[in-house]
Amino acid sequence: MAFPPHPFDPLSPDEIAETANVVRNHNGAPNVLFRVITLLEPPKEEMIAYLSSPSPKAVPKRIAKVHIYIEKVFHELHIDIPARTIVSDRLLHGRHSHIDSAYMKQVEEACLQDAQVQDEIKALNLPDGATVIAEPWTYATDGMSDMTARITMCWFYMRVSDHPDANYYAYPLEIVAEVNEELEVTKIYRLPTGEEVDEPMGNQKKVHDHRKIHTSSEYHPDLVSTRRTTTRPLHIIQPEGPSFQISGNHISWEKWTMRLGFNYREGMTLHDIRYDNRSLFYRLSLSEMFVPYGDPRFPYPRKGAFDLGNDGAGVNANNLELGCDCLGHIKYFDAWHVTSSGEPLKMPNVVCCHEQDDGILWKHTNFRTGNAVVTRSRLLVLQTIITVSNYEYVFIFYFGQDASIHYEVRATGILSTAPIDIGGKVPYGTVVAPGILAPYHQHLFCLRIDPALDGYRNSLVVEESKAMPFPERTNPFGVGYVTESTVVEKEAGLDLDHTKNRAFKIVNETVVNQMAGTPVGFRLMPWYSQPLLAHPSSYHSRRSEFGKHAVWVTRYSDEELYAAGIHTMQSSGDEGIASWIKARRDSLQKASVRNQDIVVWHTFGSTHNPRIEDWPVMPCEKMVVGLKPVNFFDANPALDVPISSQEKNKSVL
Amino acid sequence: MAFPPHPFDPLSPDEIAETANVVRNHNGAPNVLFRVITLLEPPKEEMIAYLSSPSPKAVPKRIAKVHIYIEKVFHELHIDIPARTIVSDRLLHGRHSHIDSAYMKQVEEACLQDAQVQDEIKALNLPDGATVIAEPWTYATDGMSDMTARITMCWFYMRVSDHPDANYYAYPLEIVAEVNEELEVTKIYRLPTGEEVDEPMGNQKKVHDHRKIHTSSEYHPDLVSTRRTTTRPLHIIQPEGPSFQISGNHISWEKWTMRLGFNYREGMTLHDIRYDNRSLFYRLSLSEMFVPYGDPRFPYPRKGAFDLGNDGAGVNANNLELGCDCLGHIKYFDAWHVTSSGEPLKMPNVVCCHEQDDGILWKHTNFRTGNAVVTRSRLLVLQTIITVSNYEYVFIFYFGQDASIHYEVRATGILSTAPIDIGGKVPYGTVVAPGILAPYHQHLFCLRIDPALDGYRNSLVVEESKAMPFPERTNPFGVGYVTESTVVEKEAGLDLDHTKNRAFKIVNETVVNQMAGTPVGFRLMPWYSQPLLAHPSSYHSRRSEFGKHAVWVTRYSDEELYAAGIHTMQSSGDEGIASWIKARRDSLQKASVRNQDIVVWHTFGSTHNPRIEDWPVMPCEKMVVGLKPVNFFDANPALDVPISSQEKNKSVL
Repeated sequence: MAFPPHPFDPLSPDEIAETANVVRNHNGAPNVLFRVITLLEPPKEEMIAYLSSPSPKAVPKRIAKVHIYIEKVFHELHIDIPARTIVSDRLLHGRHSHIDSAYMKQVEEACLQDAQVQDEIKALNLPDGATVIAEPWTYATDGMSDMTARITMCWFYMRVSDHPDANYYAYPLEIVAEVNEELEVTKIYRLPTGEEVDEPMGNQKKVHDHRKIHTSSEYHPDLVSTRRTTTRPLHIIQPEGPSFQISGNHISWEKWTMRLGFNYREGMTLHDIRYDNRSLFYRLSLSEMFVPYGDPRFPYPRKGAFDLGNDGAGVNANNLELGCDCLGHIKYFDAWHVTSSGEPLKMPNVVCCHEQDDGILWKHTNFRTGNAVVTRSRLLVLQTIITVSNYEYVFIFYFGQDASIHYEVRATGILSTAPIDIGGKVPYGTVVAPGILAPYHQHLFCLRIDPALDGYRNSLVVEESKAMPFPERTNPFGVGYVTESTVVEKEAGLDLDHTKNRAFKIVNETVVNQMAGTPVGFRLMPWYSQPLLAHPSSYHSRRSEFGKHAVWVTRYSDEELYAAGIHTMQSSGDEGIASWIKARRDSLQKASVRNQDIVVWHTFGSTHNPRIEDWPVMPCEKMVVGLKPVNFFDANPALDVPISSQEKNKSVL
Repeated sequence: MAFPPHPFDPLSPDEIAETANVVRNHNGAPNVLFRVITLLEPPKEEMIAYLSSPSPKAVPKRIAKVHIYIEKVFHELHIDIPARTIVSDRLLHGRHSHIDSAYMKQVEEACLQDAQVQDEIKALNLPDGATVIAEPWTYATDGMSDMTARITMCWFYMRVSDHPDANYYAYPLEIVAEVNEELEVTKIYRLPTGEEVDEPMGNQKKVHDHRKIHTSSEYHPDLVSTRRTTTRPLHIIQPEGPSFQISGNHISWEKWTMRLGFNYREGMTLHDIRYDNRSLFYRLSLSEMFVPYGDPRFPYPRKGAFDLGNDGAGVNANNLELGCDCLGHIKYFDAWHVTSSGEPLKMPNVVCCHEQDDGILWKHTNFRTGNAVVTRSRLLVLQTIITVSNYEYVFIFYFGQDASIHYEVRATGILSTAPIDIGGKVPYGTVVAPGILAPYHQHLFCLRIDPALDGYRNSLVVEESKAMPFPERTNPFGVGYVTESTVVEKEAGLDLDHTKNRAFKIVNETVVNQMAGTPVGFRLMPWYSQPLLAHPSSYHSRRSEFGKHAVWVTRYSDEELYAAGIHTMQSSGDEGIASWIKARRDSLQKASVRNQDIVVWHTFGSTHNPRIEDWPVMPCEKMVVGLKPVNFFDANPALDVPISSQEKNKSVL
């Protein structure tokens, strides 16, 4: 950590400790349960001034954003760290912080010790030696319970093996418990295990069918007997070291410069991204993700996870391991979080940075001379991996020498499972092994793109390729086509249409590319996927407004980082991106996004109807979004990349 | 080459020489102009019998397919090589072989020597020392000329530098010549250089505007003065060698086996693809590609290239260079073509085979024990690169340890250019440098997928994900969704729809996955792109029928390898995939594709409206298509991939 810190630098351990002290001094140490101490990023207006001409005078203040509970009341405080003062203290009645693992552990224990739960488990008649596991999930609002009190759903599984890493998701049990804030089991539901929509609570005690016991659902190497031995080692060697330079959180690589941020919620964030010293993006981040399950039977509609807002991509980031998660010459970045008592908590290796070869970057052979000129593509890779209970997500930014950025999400890990009768079948899930239903679900990601193309006022252009009218004098052979562009004037949610080659371009209308005669811009290369399937009036839909459209454009606001709203935990909806737009739609001044400080949001993902091949652990499903310059530069920005040669690349036959 | 050859093996040089002898003995040596001597792949019926139980008796005959000209008449002969006999000799009146580079060279020379051409060039008033280049293109049928006589369009460029690799596409000249079969210039057209639709022939002689001379359009390293020096070497080392085994054209890697084919037209083809000894695909190949230009002004509608049917992906395949085109531990494959006099012609290194690391394959961390299990993904890469005049295409098959196949196309090289007035602008092209218009165009590729999932009778299923009705008893919370599947009964062209999560699955209805209870299958992961823009009644459209829909399914026929028909050179249309379907549509027996020997075709590509960044040489534009098992296996096929370890992967900090 450089000193003084850059305004985008995450809080240092000293700053976290200092902040905790200020809070403790104000509120009294024993009563404070710390959840979050993180950087409150400076107002963009201040940052623009700072980035445009940094001078000591103009350095934005270091403000910490703090989430604490005092006597079960949720507070957000802003602390001026150097001044050691509280700037604001806001009570958030009826809202909840992100998942508290210590509390979840208590819920589990309380649940397993509950007499009624034990009675239900006994009735299941599980095999001897089975270990029952209660897996707490946040309650996805379904309108059936008080939405202000914290409710946890405990889903049950069992391990039939002694091995601690035996896959307990292979044995989803037939009950679920609802636990309240006081750690009391308030309800136990017997789960439907066929198409039993008529008896949502289950009238009869369930009995576990022992025919479900099987051995083929393990993934841990100790438990998988066959392992291929054919894969020979592959090493990536950079004899002169990597091509990047890193100073604190500042990364510089192949004409790119940027600052890496990291917080408990979004995990990796990128700031002030430039190519060849031209400003491109103010901030890139995953804004939110939502995983709604499509099983309509009660109580499954309570499965719908906001993995950023509820769980936190930062707090769930893996400690990446050299040679396992990352191959080659690796630079790791650590992050700092806070313990419940306010001590700085180191999270090692949450982001890895390395280079990758990506095949041909450009090539041309002059067929008249036979001379080939080839360059290879090198990528800068910034990767973070999170574990959210059963699932894993890999989030990767790739930077290219051609000034392109790609954002890749890989979904892996273990499917969320539910019990199903042997021989049973339902139309909203796949039976992946005996007694195991993997219900259909969607993964909806929202990438937040805060552009700064040659300045902070940009516009969004929608361009389509259209056949010229025919027959027509100007199109005598019926082959002509043109592009039609529309500048989006007001905040809106927009849809993809590949049949029109509909392109979304972020442009700076005040800077014209001299050769092309059009504004400088970057094009979004979207990932085509299905929007949210849940009914518009459902809680799933109202809570995840960003899932309705693939592309959104809004006016920048310091308050609007999270597409489904700030507090997604048990949220009741109508507080996300569509609601912001709705609130401003009648003000031409507020809703205008033309040549303004705008944010573009891309919602993408997958409708994941599980395959047998996704079990017992899922090969990565990849989703890729791109950002490519369009008439931004004066020529191919990778024209000066070194010509490939065997002398340098040392391949072998 | 193994002996005896496998029936899928391309012809050996000896077989080519032998075939030429048979042809010469029959027709007399001096009169025969050889164009093609290639393997006529055995009838599929014979091959199925052979692959199902290979025995010496059942070995299909080695038949050569031969294209020759005798006295300018185009013949196709089939030669029984071991028997040294002519099986058939068919005259193809009015049809043309693929591009003949020797003839094209003659066209160029004749064109440059033509007095009228010289007169027009003189009128252009080119700068002193300029070298004029005539670039012959095939004539894309526009209905204006006799379509049976061979016509070549010569487009003109100039080099203003002495360097032989100076980029002449930077100086498109204002004229084009039409040359007939007798090497006579039959017409010269002056090109429109603004929106001049009214005077298609150009009334006034054109003069080249010297303000167009510039220095920023070079790509050759000798001519680009700035070159970044920041990219440090990256080596891929496999200390124990690669994980693949190769015997002749048989490739075996990580449970995959397949046979590599190669021919003058399609280039790389893959045969009898199996995973863990289960049959998956009989044949995978790029069937055709079409590059129609969207500039409506005469004579630009004559620009529309069938790069396989007209040019040949095989004959234009690059000689790949170690360390330049390919990084790591490389195995190269050679191919054999034929000279015009019938001698075997070696084409070295047309396909490279190597491995690549692809990041995380699957990972899970048990949050209760903290134990992470990670595997890295290794890919087998089969790459070929072709040069078609200005453009290059990289074609890559990737095989994954999870039994997935990905097919990637990268478009690179130099944009096709046209002259435009300084300060001019048209709505169907981008001005990329002074006087250079890069017209809009499309690249439409058609991947031919000949499936053999657990047998040779398969079906195509269209599956959509649909919200359940709401409000409804079975969907009380409005979150339920199901999949609906339809088996395609008759040959058809179908469209993509990501909003419905429309999935195209190839299945074997007679083999049911025991766990999932559904037929074993593979899903096509399409590349979403715009269909052909040209008007349905245009020649562009009628000639490239495959461009109308993204997915086609047909009954297998030995005759139907090429989606735009066999002879695309100056074709007049109505002989591609839609025409085959039309011809059979009334016969329920012939048109049925349910549980039959079927072929699935995927048309994809890009509407390429050039960017400044694509000039003077284009960074690769990637398009990726996937094939993934869906309930084909009993579990994740990559479950047994070695767990990643630093000990094996030797990364560094």
